Amino acid sequence: MFDRFRYSAENCSVHRTLDVVGEKWTFLVLREAYFGVRRFEDFAHALGCARNLLSRRLATLVEHGVLRREPYREPGMRERIEYALTPKGLELYPVLVALMQWGDRWSADRAGPAIVVYHHGCGAPVRATLACAAGHEGLAAQDTRVRPGPGARRMP
Amino acid sequence: MFDRFRYSAENCSVHRTLDVVGEKWTFLVLREAYFGVRRFEDFAHALGCARNLLSRRLATLVEHGVLRREPYREPGMRERIEYALTPKGLELYPVLVALMQWGDRWSADRAGPAIVVYHHGCGAPVRATLACAAGHEGLAAQDTRVRPGPGARRMP
Repeated sequence: MFDRFRYSAENCSVHRTLDVVGEKWTFLVLREAYFGVRRFEDFAHALGCARNLLSRRLATLVEHGVLRREPYREPGMRERIEYALTPKGLELYPVLVALMQWGDRWSADRAGPAIVVYHHGCGAPVRATLACAAGHEGLAAQDTRVRPGPGARRMP
Repeated sequence: MFDRFRYSAENCSVHRTLDVVGEKWTFLVLREAYFGVRRFEDFAHALGCARNLLSRRLATLVEHGVLRREPYREPGMRERIEYALTPKGLELYPVLVALMQWGDRWSADRAGPAIVVYHHGCGAPVRATLACAAGHEGLAAQDTRVRPGPGARRMP
């Protein structure tokens, strides 16, 4: 075991990520964004959640640069706002796919998954996997270890 | 765009996964479990969170089969309980690594990541990646699409 208690978790990247997306509705908003939803009314319809909750979650994601507001205007209508994934937001996708596949494996309906993520280029289904920089793929938790990184803070 | 509004999200695996782990402290408890922490006092020390909150999170994870309680007894002491990751819990590890690497990229200290996950077999750093069943690796969100799976529920 990594000597957990010699290092602070204050600057842990898991913690910092969860400060942005560590809330159930935030991930569900992102799910809809990855599915192509961009407008407030469509998020509200897809999620069936309270509008003030949705507003807060969208504002948090914009504040952290995960979504950005983009104006649009339909003919004869006033300008309105859409929400688009930024590059930072697109990079969260492996988290969502990993959450989905765990649910698919442990809690899907008997009929199977509700959604399949596939590779646009070839049509084959996509999985979130762990791979090392030396090219070993499909690693399990048990194949890995952790060590303090360059930013590790020693406990006083 | 996948025609989002023809299908229900009721049986979405992301939602079901978040019913188990969609809460910031739950992921932080799991972080410590992956780091090798097993005892209540050690979780409390590592996380610095309220003990009743920790108790609830551990109970939820046990209830869903992510952790299991294991009795242990130190010489001359009464029997106590440790928390061990189950196979179901170990399979959540890609989610944690994906959360961590996003935080490493977008919010780490200037010095770098606090923690490095590496492959025990070869020492190389580990990444969470998306790969398709036909062998295409390192896929980005933009390289993928979604389609209804066998369990998709049509909207009435």
